[in-house]
Amino acid sequence: MAQRQGRFVLKLPNKPKILATAAVVGPKEAEGPHGPDFDNCHSDDYVGQETWEKAESVIHKEAIERAINKAGLSPLDIDMVFAGDLMDQEIASTLGIRELNIPFVGLFGACSTMALGLALAGLMADTHAANYAVASTSSHFCSAEKQFRYPLAYGAQRSTTAQRTVTGAGAAVVAANGPKRAPYIDAVFLGRIRDLGIKDAANMGAAMAPAAATTIIDFMHDTGTTADDYDLILTGDLGKVGSTLVRELMLTRENMDISKVHNDCGMMIFDLEKQDVHAGGSGCGCSAAILCSYIYKELEKGNLKSVLFVGTGALMSPTLTQQGETIPSIAHAVLIRSGC
Amino acid sequence: MAQRQGRFVLKLPNKPKILATAAVVGPKEAEGPHGPDFDNCHSDDYVGQETWEKAESVIHKEAIERAINKAGLSPLDIDMVFAGDLMDQEIASTLGIRELNIPFVGLFGACSTMALGLALAGLMADTHAANYAVASTSSHFCSAEKQFRYPLAYGAQRSTTAQRTVTGAGAAVVAANGPKRAPYIDAVFLGRIRDLGIKDAANMGAAMAPAAATTIIDFMHDTGTTADDYDLILTGDLGKVGSTLVRELMLTRENMDISKVHNDCGMMIFDLEKQDVHAGGSGCGCSAAILCSYIYKELEKGNLKSVLFVGTGALMSPTLTQQGETIPSIAHAVLIRSGC
Repeated sequence: MAQRQGRFVLKLPNKPKILATAAVVGPKEAEGPHGPDFDNCHSDDYVGQETWEKAESVIHKEAIERAINKAGLSPLDIDMVFAGDLMDQEIASTLGIRELNIPFVGLFGACSTMALGLALAGLMADTHAANYAVASTSSHFCSAEKQFRYPLAYGAQRSTTAQRTVTGAGAAVVAANGPKRAPYIDAVFLGRIRDLGIKDAANMGAAMAPAAATTIIDFMHDTGTTADDYDLILTGDLGKVGSTLVRELMLTRENMDISKVHNDCGMMIFDLEKQDVHAGGSGCGCSAAILCSYIYKELEKGNLKSVLFVGTGALMSPTLTQQGETIPSIAHAVLIRSGC
Repeated sequence: MAQRQGRFVLKLPNKPKILATAAVVGPKEAEGPHGPDFDNCHSDDYVGQETWEKAESVIHKEAIERAINKAGLSPLDIDMVFAGDLMDQEIASTLGIRELNIPFVGLFGACSTMALGLALAGLMADTHAANYAVASTSSHFCSAEKQFRYPLAYGAQRSTTAQRTVTGAGAAVVAANGPKRAPYIDAVFLGRIRDLGIKDAANMGAAMAPAAATTIIDFMHDTGTTADDYDLILTGDLGKVGSTLVRELMLTRENMDISKVHNDCGMMIFDLEKQDVHAGGSGCGCSAAILCSYIYKELEKGNLKSVLFVGTGALMSPTLTQQGETIPSIAHAVLIRSGC
């Protein structure tokens, strides 16, 4: 059973394995630095569907099916799927998963969803409540812009602090048992809501940075570790503004320089110089796609030994923005280690 | 650790206790048959707030605080809260929980959310991943009508199959250890998405009934039980139409008459003859309020020994309704037993 370490960290003594992962993205992401790492890159944002929402549900389902397939399993083998997305009523997840006939736990964590799902899947596999659990999530640039900001056809100019929602999906199969060499989940951390009063829906990095810093600090405090104990502290998705802020917050609050081991999925998925994406990528699909492709491969090879994956979510709502509310944020964390 | 029974049921051998519950409702619910059972009935739908969304977040937070208080605990004692609601981006939960500083797992399950949260809280407490976990949810008639159907000011006529979203919130504190006499969670069941092609957002009972029937049948099959083994099979919230359908489905598919032990939170919370609520109550807050008041008290007294609580959710989305999609539904189940 999970062992509590300090106040918040749950150590998973049975080391549940991440058996396989898959990432599926759209055309813009294909042109980014990690294009060759993804399992499939669609050339059409509609993925042959009539609407962006249905397109997102198709890539969500595809990521799950590919991950299950790579693990040598069928959907019938999966005990539960932890899934969510950015859409109202999690429609990309529900439509995508509807035909797979897998027990479904709907999650909401905005961009933190992949970390939240992975944490819960790890907890379930660790105690054998699930032999196999899937964590999956997706986002889509067009469906997200339409829902959260302006319709694309309106042609609104984006500010320099804005992040571009990634069109992409990622899925991971977590297992109670598996090959010794497979990457495994060593510990998980469920975050608390932070809100330092940011109201600008075009500056989510600033809203999420305090949540990320709090989670990293609490995780290190509970485990008695420092930045030197990790090959990579991977936030997702703070983008350029939020990444700068989280490093500054770590310096100010803890006198700790994390810059040597810190990277951010929103900074990695696009070439910020060449791709006109302002402050970088965001959306559930961003950290899911990066984690479930490049990062997982590096863990498999042993090039990365320990990755503290910190999923950051701006729990932003257009309704509350209209009511003058600030943006609550959260950060969940999963410590993944290489089995090599 | 959880023991799998059959294909889907997870038996919790450590019998996690439901230490305390609380239910908070609005004025219409106060006038219903269970008005005296609720912890607090507000006379004002706005609960002193400027908007319905903020009002819902206030009753959500109040239910959590009251439940924690009744358990003799403080928010700092709670290891995690599993919460969700009907609002886009779960805003009633996030605003309500923002100030409580409890690790937050955001859930989406529409009206099935209380059962889903209780299932996950039970799984966590059973393995001591949480010493104390809270499951909570809420809904609000005015915020839900505005978001899912028509603005109230529009004065649209409601069809006879329509259910009235309950203004209410419920919360339960689940603990790894507790008094032997406390009601406990014996088994949990995570549902799969069912969709038999219902498109009418004013007839959610029909959309959800097949999911409820599938869950009840699978639960009984896995555990080798029949209707006779339960004091109460409590669905929430099928209302009048869905309740009739689930009984018919059980007769047709299993040749099993559940009518003697079946009741539905949507039928219980209002007086359907006198309160002009059409097909009954619905919304996350409906089953949460009934379970966390009257049902819990009956379990505490031992008047009910075994309750199969089947939370049913219509994963309905206005966006997908506009795109001609059908309504995916789900039903999660929790078997609660009296400790007496």
